Amino acid sequence: MSEFKYVGKDIPRVDAWDKVTGRGMFTQDVSLPGMLYTRVLRSPYAHAKVVSIDLSEAEKLPGVAAVAYFGNTTRKLFNPSNGQVLTMEPHEPAMDMRLFTDEPKYIGDEIAAVAAVDEKTAQRAVSLIKITYRELPFVLDPLEALKEDAPAVQPVQVLKNVLGQPAEFKMGDTDAGFAEADLVVEDQVRISRLKHAQLETQCAVADYRDDGRLKVVSTTQSPHNALVILSHLFEIPESRIEVCAGAPYVGGGFGTRTGFSGKAEAIAAALSMLARRPVKYSYTREEDMTCSDSRHGGYITGRLGVKKDGTFCCVEVTAYLNIGAYATYSMDVLSVLGAYGICSTYHIPNLHYMGYGCYTNQQNAGAFRGFGTPQGTFMMETLVDHAAKELGMDGVILRKMNSTKVGDTWILPYPVGSTGLNECIDKAAAAIGWKAKRGGTKTGHLRRGIGLAAGTHGSNAWPFCVDYSSTYARIENDGSLFISVASPEIGPGSTTSMTQIAAESMHIPIDMVRVRFGETASAPFDSGTHATRTLYTVGNVIHRACLSLVDQVLEYAQEQLGIAKDRLKLEDGMIRADGGEEKADGCNSPDGVSISLAALAHKAHLNNRRFLATVSDFIPNTPPWECHGAEVEVDMQTGMVRVVRMVCAHDVGRAINPLLVKGQIEGGVVMGIGGALREEMSYVEGKGFYNDGFHKYMLPAIGDIPEIVSIIVESCDPTGPYNLKGVGECSSIPTAAAIASAVEDATGVRFHELPMTPGRVLQGLKEAGKI
Amino acid sequence: MSEFKYVGKDIPRVDAWDKVTGRGMFTQDVSLPGMLYTRVLRSPYAHAKVVSIDLSEAEKLPGVAAVAYFGNTTRKLFNPSNGQVLTMEPHEPAMDMRLFTDEPKYIGDEIAAVAAVDEKTAQRAVSLIKITYRELPFVLDPLEALKEDAPAVQPVQVLKNVLGQPAEFKMGDTDAGFAEADLVVEDQVRISRLKHAQLETQCAVADYRDDGRLKVVSTTQSPHNALVILSHLFEIPESRIEVCAGAPYVGGGFGTRTGFSGKAEAIAAALSMLARRPVKYSYTREEDMTCSDSRHGGYITGRLGVKKDGTFCCVEVTAYLNIGAYATYSMDVLSVLGAYGICSTYHIPNLHYMGYGCYTNQQNAGAFRGFGTPQGTFMMETLVDHAAKELGMDGVILRKMNSTKVGDTWILPYPVGSTGLNECIDKAAAAIGWKAKRGGTKTGHLRRGIGLAAGTHGSNAWPFCVDYSSTYARIENDGSLFISVASPEIGPGSTTSMTQIAAESMHIPIDMVRVRFGETASAPFDSGTHATRTLYTVGNVIHRACLSLVDQVLEYAQEQLGIAKDRLKLEDGMIRADGGEEKADGCNSPDGVSISLAALAHKAHLNNRRFLATVSDFIPNTPPWECHGAEVEVDMQTGMVRVVRMVCAHDVGRAINPLLVKGQIEGGVVMGIGGALREEMSYVEGKGFYNDGFHKYMLPAIGDIPEIVSIIVESCDPTGPYNLKGVGECSSIPTAAAIASAVEDATGVRFHELPMTPGRVLQGLKEAGKI
Repeated sequence: MSEFKYVGKDIPRVDAWDKVTGRGMFTQDVSLPGMLYTRVLRSPYAHAKVVSIDLSEAEKLPGVAAVAYFGNTTRKLFNPSNGQVLTMEPHEPAMDMRLFTDEPKYIGDEIAAVAAVDEKTAQRAVSLIKITYRELPFVLDPLEALKEDAPAVQPVQVLKNVLGQPAEFKMGDTDAGFAEADLVVEDQVRISRLKHAQLETQCAVADYRDDGRLKVVSTTQSPHNALVILSHLFEIPESRIEVCAGAPYVGGGFGTRTGFSGKAEAIAAALSMLARRPVKYSYTREEDMTCSDSRHGGYITGRLGVKKDGTFCCVEVTAYLNIGAYATYSMDVLSVLGAYGICSTYHIPNLHYMGYGCYTNQQNAGAFRGFGTPQGTFMMETLVDHAAKELGMDGVILRKMNSTKVGDTWILPYPVGSTGLNECIDKAAAAIGWKAKRGGTKTGHLRRGIGLAAGTHGSNAWPFCVDYSSTYARIENDGSLFISVASPEIGPGSTTSMTQIAAESMHIPIDMVRVRFGETASAPFDSGTHATRTLYTVGNVIHRACLSLVDQVLEYAQEQLGIAKDRLKLEDGMIRADGGEEKADGCNSPDGVSISLAALAHKAHLNNRRFLATVSDFIPNTPPWECHGAEVEVDMQTGMVRVVRMVCAHDVGRAINPLLVKGQIEGGVVMGIGGALREEMSYVEGKGFYNDGFHKYMLPAIGDIPEIVSIIVESCDPTGPYNLKGVGECSSIPTAAAIASAVEDATGVRFHELPMTPGRVLQGLKEAGKI
Repeated sequence: MSEFKYVGKDIPRVDAWDKVTGRGMFTQDVSLPGMLYTRVLRSPYAHAKVVSIDLSEAEKLPGVAAVAYFGNTTRKLFNPSNGQVLTMEPHEPAMDMRLFTDEPKYIGDEIAAVAAVDEKTAQRAVSLIKITYRELPFVLDPLEALKEDAPAVQPVQVLKNVLGQPAEFKMGDTDAGFAEADLVVEDQVRISRLKHAQLETQCAVADYRDDGRLKVVSTTQSPHNALVILSHLFEIPESRIEVCAGAPYVGGGFGTRTGFSGKAEAIAAALSMLARRPVKYSYTREEDMTCSDSRHGGYITGRLGVKKDGTFCCVEVTAYLNIGAYATYSMDVLSVLGAYGICSTYHIPNLHYMGYGCYTNQQNAGAFRGFGTPQGTFMMETLVDHAAKELGMDGVILRKMNSTKVGDTWILPYPVGSTGLNECIDKAAAAIGWKAKRGGTKTGHLRRGIGLAAGTHGSNAWPFCVDYSSTYARIENDGSLFISVASPEIGPGSTTSMTQIAAESMHIPIDMVRVRFGETASAPFDSGTHATRTLYTVGNVIHRACLSLVDQVLEYAQEQLGIAKDRLKLEDGMIRADGGEEKADGCNSPDGVSISLAALAHKAHLNNRRFLATVSDFIPNTPPWECHGAEVEVDMQTGMVRVVRMVCAHDVGRAINPLLVKGQIEGGVVMGIGGALREEMSYVEGKGFYNDGFHKYMLPAIGDIPEIVSIIVESCDPTGPYNLKGVGECSSIPTAAAIASAVEDATGVRFHELPMTPGRVLQGLKEAGKI
């Protein structure tokens, strides 16, 4: 990495000061003069019809400024996710939600909202809304929902309670593939609904003006997409809306606010329009947990056909995911589950994947770190381990021989461009002590075992949806660089890495670079911080904008210095010709001269000239690869699984900031451990989800977190800026499968249901006769 | 004007709703969490040295967060005006001010400032600062300041107490010119210091972050220039500073905040750096009146040589202006006074102008609507009326025969491109009833008279300083247009006219256009709202950006429709080929098709493409012209002059929004009347300016405002966008001269000193033996 000055370096985060001093502002901190506060009336029924509603008492309560409900605000169907904005032709975005409904479809569905001088008054007003319901039949399980006599959650689709056309990938001939196979293994896995549990709850402040301008600050991960959806909902031209993602910080995301942040933006906006004042709507933790989207749970079944020598010849997988009452994101999640979870890690000539998004009368599921790939990977790696066991083959060898190689044709519409997967597998295996430890300890009540699982994902969301970024960049009067991008800083530190790319590409000291982020006024369209895309896709346009600015600068230097552009070079903020030395008034010297960018930029200013660039660009997706190794200790008496150590090898193309890459890996692994062993949204019929706060949702605490060894593999992919690929989501993808493999290694029992809670483990051990 | 859809129409102001509902936010309304408030310690002496200062008691006061003074903040010399940023080579900007001083040079000069939890605590802390001074000699009058034994206000310049090289314009040969003349008239005028009296006092909120970012919201007219000066003062890269002019509105300007708004930005920023919290500094009205800049008063002497037939053959003028203790702007004001006030309205082959900016120990003078031209015009029109009287010629005929004509070479480095001046003179003369009424009534104690005066000015500040604008524009996903410009909306309504230009140039409905204004994050460099430049210079870049966007749109339409670009036309938001009709799916039809811009923009989005434009452009200055006619009634017993009627003919090139042009004319005329008859800053030795509030500064009240007839003349200049020229400052330029001429017509006495207060008039009438 020595050829670079900033790329590849552990530069401290640009938001570090703001975060450690507590001065960084989040949406929750925003307060505007005259601002009102919101509480929402939510359905107590999983499915019902509002028979009557009387707002008069609520409206009369002193301190109440507006009551919005389905009768006085927009009735347009919409989709609160990126899906409404980014779904590509020929597909149509799923539009099945209304802002407020008179037919609630899950416990918590929004019926009305109150804006008042404080939350207490708003809550009191909500309690004064007189409402009567007629209860309607409901369905909660995705497989139940497919049955003929199940109540329809949404108007009938192509298949009852199935969103749109099921997702499908097909390659080769599965009949022929299975016929070729010497061994066919078959498994079913069951995956629970998970919650993002980001620290900052969904929140928005909206300020609508009578001339039709709307400004929203919110916890969205995709300010432009939120803007487009607001424009659609309220029929306001996009140019009159501004959305800021945070102020400027967003307290985590993990997918829960790609597009709208819950319905916070739209509810606050609807109330601001009625009240003619700024309105804040901050979800309570309870609302956030039970009334904004979560990760899809469901059932996946798979069959893998393998030759004696270990060659995978065929795979067939079907997924049924519980999408809840509205199709926030489900087509794309089902697609990605198949694409990256099933069809990509290994090169399997014959494959068939079907994915069904099943409507139920539960809170909707949506984007969640990994976007389907963790679920698919858990299925696929279960099959691979199963085949290895049946064949008596080493899992490392089996994986490496079947892994997708450079040049392979696969699910993306071009061959694989680079892969460090086998290097990841080798390094993870070595680091976890594969040769020495695999086989586990079989004595005592604390059993140790190790396991390993591989995976891939995308570096952006293409070709599953529209995916491009834009930037707007300027050289200021003093030679400093201003860059604006709309993708928010939701925690990973991407804006720090962007700053590094900008300094490297512009050839100026890094403290002369400012990357502004997360708002739609200065930044042109960007699809937001999601899909592992941010640094890859935004980094690309930043790089391109800098190349344009360097070109403009050298063009002007050529004019001013009278030296041909191709003899000039910008280095560390200085423009030099053929290695010349700096001179105070170098402008008119014929040769061997230099001039600082600051002096040149100021000269340009004095001549009424600026260096400006806008870039909007699409970059084809080049997937990253990963392999996790896990060492676990299983308590045979309690069923408690303790992760002792995780080793996580990731092909990130190139690590722009290795420290931040490791931060992403560690954070993702912790989420992966949570989903593998602890976290689960539990539904109680008639009451809804039990987990209405962090105290009822078993996030990994510090004592649950093992040593995590992050291994960076750099395949230096030719596609991405500075050869980088994504990493954000990848780090939680193979974690659960690696842990399940380690648990099997320790206990001899393979678990097919997540999370592997002590109860489930104990029961599994009993059923297998191990205790 | 029928060829245009929006240009030339009285479109209601885009900020109307915000202003009439009271929801428009100004800097004074800004409140940030944890924000501190400021009070300032100011010098009680016109010139002194701080011998000792002890902050300890102030710092100890509970609620005080920081005390800034000359010992703990920046000591850099700077210039708070646009001058620091826009002064062109080979001149250097005058840098003679420090943020806090230990040698105060006027009563009110800043020595220290306190940030505290509220203003009361801050004021109490200011009173606890123990300070001792040594008084130093001072000088108050500009002519006194030039004397050999006068104390030096600033380190000695080329001439004692004279800023830089005196301004000078020379054409032809004045000796020969005067030799040619049949008549030489000579006059001296004296002009008082005036105050802008904008409604919102100087105010700024600064938020400095530990990572070196600084955000400032302030009442500046020039956010980028304020940014550059902050960068200089605090050595922060420009890309890390953001300045918003208002939030987004600025409560008036009239020149008083071109660059910094007083020192509000820098004082708030210095305190925020020390306190590590956001800080607001809002000038009291007293501070605003007596400690931020004002219009230059001073002395001007002139000689005009005329041939018998009325041909002007020579003019010689010398101005001595009181610039106060610091050179906020004075070189440029002195230049403009000569250029437009003396050398431009009439074509005079031999001329010599000298302008001296004289330092005194008073509050500094700076930019003020007209920027020197009103002072110069008062001198020039006094000479012209004098000559007319001596020659016995009609003032209208004399003016028209000598007025500058198209093609004349003059003060600008290219010939006159267009002038409607003679049309203005004719129309003003007709409207004021020149033929019928000139000569006045000579009986009774209420004497009526009419007068007339002509003038010109610039449409921007070039070539007196750097002058260009930039814009950043986008077509959004729904075909709406977003445009960002940094020039603030300080009241005139320019942003409405910009919106009209954008809609006209983009060929879309006006409600699809949004012009964002007044901040430096989304907008590239613009030198701000001043110098009559805004609509002319910013309108030009908006027009150019729209042309670029239309081109990009048609290029993409060509790709999509398969029809050559030159056969496509964008009209009213539709792209049509050869008059074809709209079709829902017209994209692939071969001919006669149309597609809406909205559909095309959305299609582009789905194909990862955006239409973006940045434009930075200089446009040569093309001056507007004007002639005012005044009818007055003079009370010979009290000396009170009442303006009965003003008729104001302005060549504005083309009126983009005639209603707003008339608003500008009316507002300017009222200011002109104030300066002619009422307004005056009066200095009391040892105390400073008497006029520390509106109650002590005689602004025209509603009873003082006559009928104002605005006459728009359209010369359709080829240079400006849609042929427009400026108007903002022009409307107060010839007002005082027209009124003086009318007073002379009524009374037979010519007054040479402004304002013509009852006392001065009475004394003048007595001296002339008229009463």
